[in-house]
Amino acid sequence: MSSFGKIFRVTTYGESHCQSVGCIVDGVPPGMSLTSEDIQPQLTRRRPGQSKLSTPRNEKDKVHIQSGLEYDKTLGTPIAMLIKNEDQRPHDYSDMDAYPRPSHADYTYSEKYGIKASSGGGRASARETIGRVAAGAIAEKFLKQVNNVEIVAFTSQIGEVKMDRNPFDPKFHQLLNTITREKVDSVGFIRCPDLSVAPDMVKEIEKYRGQQDSIGGVVTCVVRNLPTGLGEPCFDKLEAMLAHAMLSIPASKGFEIGSGFAGVSVPGSKHNDMFYYDEESKRLRTKTNNSGGIQGGISNGENIYFSVPFKSTATISKEQHTATYDGKDGILAAKGRHDPAVTPRAIPIVEAMTALVLADALLIQKSRDYGRSVVH
Amino acid sequence: MSSFGKIFRVTTYGESHCQSVGCIVDGVPPGMSLTSEDIQPQLTRRRPGQSKLSTPRNEKDKVHIQSGLEYDKTLGTPIAMLIKNEDQRPHDYSDMDAYPRPSHADYTYSEKYGIKASSGGGRASARETIGRVAAGAIAEKFLKQVNNVEIVAFTSQIGEVKMDRNPFDPKFHQLLNTITREKVDSVGFIRCPDLSVAPDMVKEIEKYRGQQDSIGGVVTCVVRNLPTGLGEPCFDKLEAMLAHAMLSIPASKGFEIGSGFAGVSVPGSKHNDMFYYDEESKRLRTKTNNSGGIQGGISNGENIYFSVPFKSTATISKEQHTATYDGKDGILAAKGRHDPAVTPRAIPIVEAMTALVLADALLIQKSRDYGRSVVH
Amino acid sequence: MSSFGKIFRVTTYGESHCQSVGCIVDGVPPGMSLTSEDIQPQLTRRRPGQSKLSTPRNEKDKVHIQSGLEYDKTLGTPIAMLIKNEDQRPHDYSDMDAYPRPSHADYTYSEKYGIKASSGGGRASARETIGRVAAGAIAEKFLKQVNNVEIVAFTSQIGEVKMDRNPFDPKFHQLLNTITREKVDSVGFIRCPDLSVAPDMVKEIEKYRGQQDSIGGVVTCVVRNLPTGLGEPCFDKLEAMLAHAMLSIPASKGFEIGSGFAGVSVPGSKHNDMFYYDEESKRLRTKTNNSGGIQGGISNGENIYFSVPFKSTATISKEQHTATYDGKDGILAAKGRHDPAVTPRAIPIVEAMTALVLADALLIQKSRDYGRSVVH
Amino acid sequence: MSSFGKIFRVTTYGESHCQSVGCIVDGVPPGMSLTSEDIQPQLTRRRPGQSKLSTPRNEKDKVHIQSGLEYDKTLGTPIAMLIKNEDQRPHDYSDMDAYPRPSHADYTYSEKYGIKASSGGGRASARETIGRVAAGAIAEKFLKQVNNVEIVAFTSQIGEVKMDRNPFDPKFHQLLNTITREKVDSVGFIRCPDLSVAPDMVKEIEKYRGQQDSIGGVVTCVVRNLPTGLGEPCFDKLEAMLAHAMLSIPASKGFEIGSGFAGVSVPGSKHNDMFYYDEESKRLRTKTNNSGGIQGGISNGENIYFSVPFKSTATISKEQHTATYDGKDGILAAKGRHDPAVTPRAIPIVEAMTALVLADALLIQKSRDYGRSVVH
Repeated sequence: MSSFGKIFRVTTYGESHCQSVGCIVDGVPPGMSLTSEDIQPQLTRRRPGQSKLSTPRNEKDKVHIQSGLEYDKTLGTPIAMLIKNEDQRPHDYSDMDAYPRPSHADYTYSEKYGIKASSGGGRASARETIGRVAAGAIAEKFLKQVNNVEIVAFTSQIGEVKMDRNPFDPKFHQLLNTITREKVDSVGFIRCPDLSVAPDMVKEIEKYRGQQDSIGGVVTCVVRNLPTGLGEPCFDKLEAMLAHAMLSIPASKGFEIGSGFAGVSVPGSKHNDMFYYDEESKRLRTKTNNSGGIQGGISNGENIYFSVPFKSTATISKEQHTATYDGKDGILAAKGRHDPAVTPRAIPIVEAMTALVLADALLIQKSRDYGRSVVH
Repeated sequence: MSSFGKIFRVTTYGESHCQSVGCIVDGVPPGMSLTSEDIQPQLTRRRPGQSKLSTPRNEKDKVHIQSGLEYDKTLGTPIAMLIKNEDQRPHDYSDMDAYPRPSHADYTYSEKYGIKASSGGGRASARETIGRVAAGAIAEKFLKQVNNVEIVAFTSQIGEVKMDRNPFDPKFHQLLNTITREKVDSVGFIRCPDLSVAPDMVKEIEKYRGQQDSIGGVVTCVVRNLPTGLGEPCFDKLEAMLAHAMLSIPASKGFEIGSGFAGVSVPGSKHNDMFYYDEESKRLRTKTNNSGGIQGGISNGENIYFSVPFKSTATISKEQHTATYDGKDGILAAKGRHDPAVTPRAIPIVEAMTALVLADALLIQKSRDYGRSVVH
Repeated sequence: MSSFGKIFRVTTYGESHCQSVGCIVDGVPPGMSLTSEDIQPQLTRRRPGQSKLSTPRNEKDKVHIQSGLEYDKTLGTPIAMLIKNEDQRPHDYSDMDAYPRPSHADYTYSEKYGIKASSGGGRASARETIGRVAAGAIAEKFLKQVNNVEIVAFTSQIGEVKMDRNPFDPKFHQLLNTITREKVDSVGFIRCPDLSVAPDMVKEIEKYRGQQDSIGGVVTCVVRNLPTGLGEPCFDKLEAMLAHAMLSIPASKGFEIGSGFAGVSVPGSKHNDMFYYDEESKRLRTKTNNSGGIQGGISNGENIYFSVPFKSTATISKEQHTATYDGKDGILAAKGRHDPAVTPRAIPIVEAMTALVLADALLIQKSRDYGRSVVH
Repeated sequence: MSSFGKIFRVTTYGESHCQSVGCIVDGVPPGMSLTSEDIQPQLTRRRPGQSKLSTPRNEKDKVHIQSGLEYDKTLGTPIAMLIKNEDQRPHDYSDMDAYPRPSHADYTYSEKYGIKASSGGGRASARETIGRVAAGAIAEKFLKQVNNVEIVAFTSQIGEVKMDRNPFDPKFHQLLNTITREKVDSVGFIRCPDLSVAPDMVKEIEKYRGQQDSIGGVVTCVVRNLPTGLGEPCFDKLEAMLAHAMLSIPASKGFEIGSGFAGVSVPGSKHNDMFYYDEESKRLRTKTNNSGGIQGGISNGENIYFSVPFKSTATISKEQHTATYDGKDGILAAKGRHDPAVTPRAIPIVEAMTALVLADALLIQKSRDYGRSVVH
């Protein structure tokens, strides 16, 4: 369905070529300062056309808040937001109409719904994520006010070009401790904070653009200052909710938290995060953080960090030998300009989905904290 | 919370040392033949003590069906199942009581609940998964009757020892097309169908056992014969639900579907799965399957395959320099025998969680199919 | 929260004095013809200013569909709808600001949210129901196409003036069998199909209007042609979902289905609905229908009928001796013109909420029917 | 489905003639003292055979807690409870097998599930409510510890014999202010605290028992000391959740809160509950309580009170002219002894469902309170 979250809950709507896209955010705490200024920056970071590396369609994506605010304070009631589809061109893709785009959602939507939207993949469009980013911005503002929770995502790989994200390397953790969104953006649209590889990433993208092709990448995200105790122990472990959130982003193909896939070959004696008493925070902390800030599904107060691979963009201008909906072999070459690498634009979406997961987990835990505080 | 699924829905209960563990399965279609014989095999595959590679505690794990059946047919009402905790030893771990086990859930449970179960991590115990496996067996039986849906998981890595799981290698796909659960089990408890690496995996585990240490691994899972059209387009994409399910399994640290992390460096022109018309099935199929059977969040009828890394077991007998709950440095060495590698035992859990995701997605889609069939 | 339904699901937003009110409807079957023409009539029936009996504020309430449609066919994706708040007068009630309106939601909202909207009760405004009515119109169209399901509500009481709604009177059932929405509206805005009492109801309202007072009433609703088997047996019995829906309508104070409160004094031997075989429909039917079309929480194919009392409007111009938020005694007299009886306007809301309950129950049951049809 | 609640959530299972009935209660705050002694009393109040007025089958209904406790303290994990079906007699009703019992769930279950349980109505059995009562006892204990919340239900009508429950009568409110569970039970199994009518109620039941018939009644329930601010403003108004809960109890046919059906004929000027400042509680209270403690869907701190009609028991020994499943006319006379009036036994079920609604609403509101307390 189109809703996410239990207590802090977003419901989104909209396709590429309808009147608008947007969302309703339910469960926002009342009395919080909020204006469109809090929401627009992440929408702007998400939209295409920010650099020559991305598609030059100039979508403006201005948010219009419909409800839930008065005098720039939240009322505690649902906040509806809409962003107009200014670029409504339902027939722009018409030449492709006979072909389901390979590795896009055209074929599966047609199987699922028995109806083909002129926009092909319908809700599989990247435009669907606008509502999530708008909602995530509200969740982020809330988390910031709770405990100065910080969420920063960045590009850690484009094609073959990788920056170090070795979980057993202290330098990587130093980066996670200090990286800011400003720092990420200062590098340009590639959004890779490692200046030793960022230029090569740009070149990688330009190479595939030149070939009318596309390439994938990896986004890594860190969460700092999250309180302990968040996440439900069984099915709704905090990492399970994050994985759910990340794999719901178009083009994502995976998720790993903490030591992830690399950690499986490290024995328990080295992989286990030993405890020590931290004088500054007056509580137990761990000497290493191979767990990625979550143990047994519950946050332990260390940084949460995870990575998400995004495949190469499915829609390319290069010719593809494929078949039409009715089974005839043929050659498809998408018209128009297409984004050769969506990875950098996925960053605000990763941040938004992370914020939505955490805001919800926090509110659920706080109701438990209350219960725990009154019973005996 | 302790429930999973919308229409086909399981709720589990139980810790290591309480009376019993179990579940309630709601939404099972009525009129299906079912006895404990359908459920016991996967419980038996899950339980420890199956070989010298796993912990020798002899848990019997016999399922007792409480409700929802009459004359070995499902009534359509909730099926409750319980499995007694015969091995109730609440004080067995008592020496460890002063220490939260590193990378286990002891510390985070204590932060979350403010109470420490004698079993430490409480629901983080592997015993909690018994209810899931019992429920998954029912889901599997249903899926089998729907379209002969087959779910087979196997060990694809232990420590440094890997079998080929390159998504771009046709031989890997040949394996996915043909592997059976019988074949997997015929290798022994290591459950790796690649006989060229399975013995080395066994050695890897024995090496760490000898060192009173532990080691991680990767489970790969394939789903065959799934109908097209399953999965919801936005937040509840089929891969998002699978990722949620997999990361909810204790000790799992990630998820990748189809080409996963490896796919990000392959350009769109090679990564895209081109369509062709398949005479046998009379529908479009794809020449390659880098998507892993899901496009735009919806099943496309090809094999679904994914991998899940499991970290090395947190509880080890080797000495660990860590701290007590109240912050004093010290040395912890867990008593008793511990499973040096949980990966092979995770296999029926991976299969169960997969079945639960698919049964629910199928029933939701079938209600939509109905709606679509009557409107005009 | 602001969502209702599991598979056919509406989420609403909006207060009296924000930009717009509206909703997102998720789970609408794909391929259904739909335009704003299908939705506007019920919105128009709901809005005030339809006669001198209701408030003369001329709200236009024109629906704007944002998404989920292409070429007047549903895509199966979320349908967002918005209705602008043309009458934005946040300060119109300013003289009342010191007083929480008695029996309105001003005080409880202030307790719940700690913030006072200029519109006082915030979401408690009748305007919130616009989104429900819009969503209900889609549910109704779907139900109509399924089995010609008909939902008709009407005014059965205003103040002391009642029409016969004795469940043991065959004439009442004859009315339930034949009443149409056209017939209901033909009586005028009072919407009572019993012409022997309708004029007295009008007089009753006018009497209280003349006294700057208000009066309550009862809405009765019938559902015809609903298939058997809808409703879940335990917590989500069909009557429980209907009761939930009805008590969620502002100003409603109760619910009774079938024989309701009157039935408790009738012994089982008379109250039980005996079965007979109906040649026309080729199935069992009941000779009487004291059950109100639902037995054990599940529809039995007979008419569903129920009644809902609505209290007298809380906002009145008559002086009221009450207290201010800060506890000072005083006299409150609401400015402006107020609806002396909301009962007739509640009719499309009752119909909408009924349709939402039934569409959801139908889709859930159809997924079970599918399961039941394939298992053995 | 078989679950109820969002944060404090119960899932039940079990039919009349299976191994056991029971439930899983999720979301119970950790650290609360709890033993079966807290749960058994309400189970005992619920069970039949307590007096000659009810069915003499001696069900023992002893609760067995399976999980979620250690050393008599809740762990915060799911609490599973089971109550054995000692009276397993699947064939006791065999003569009735050809007939769906009129106004029972036999026919609708057969339509819904396509399978007939030997117990006929399957989950429609009153035994299903055992799990609810067990869960409700935990919710009650929690509410008691929060704010000394008290929930007391009593019989207010049997057949034609009514006690005063006029919402505009101060004496009725005096009763609501003072009635205790002990007082209710002191009257005997009839559980009507008005001694001027209780004996006539007993006679009413005995009359119908003598005729092998049955009779209905009304349960009235009051909640005292509930904090303000509980309930969600739109679909999940507190009264909507209560109505949902009450109509989910077998044999219930309605719900009215506060002035209910009687209130519709009282003008706003009299019906509105005027505010005054209460020196004792240092907050606004209302002079009257026609609202029934809820305004705009949110608790206002006054007593919540509501009434629920229960129809006459469907299963009677008296002969009934009805039809068999396959449509043949005939005469059905149920064997065995049947409860001529379930109303008094419904009392602990009404209390349990009320507690479940309130515990959930409280925990949800407390998460909002937290959010509200930290934002600015």
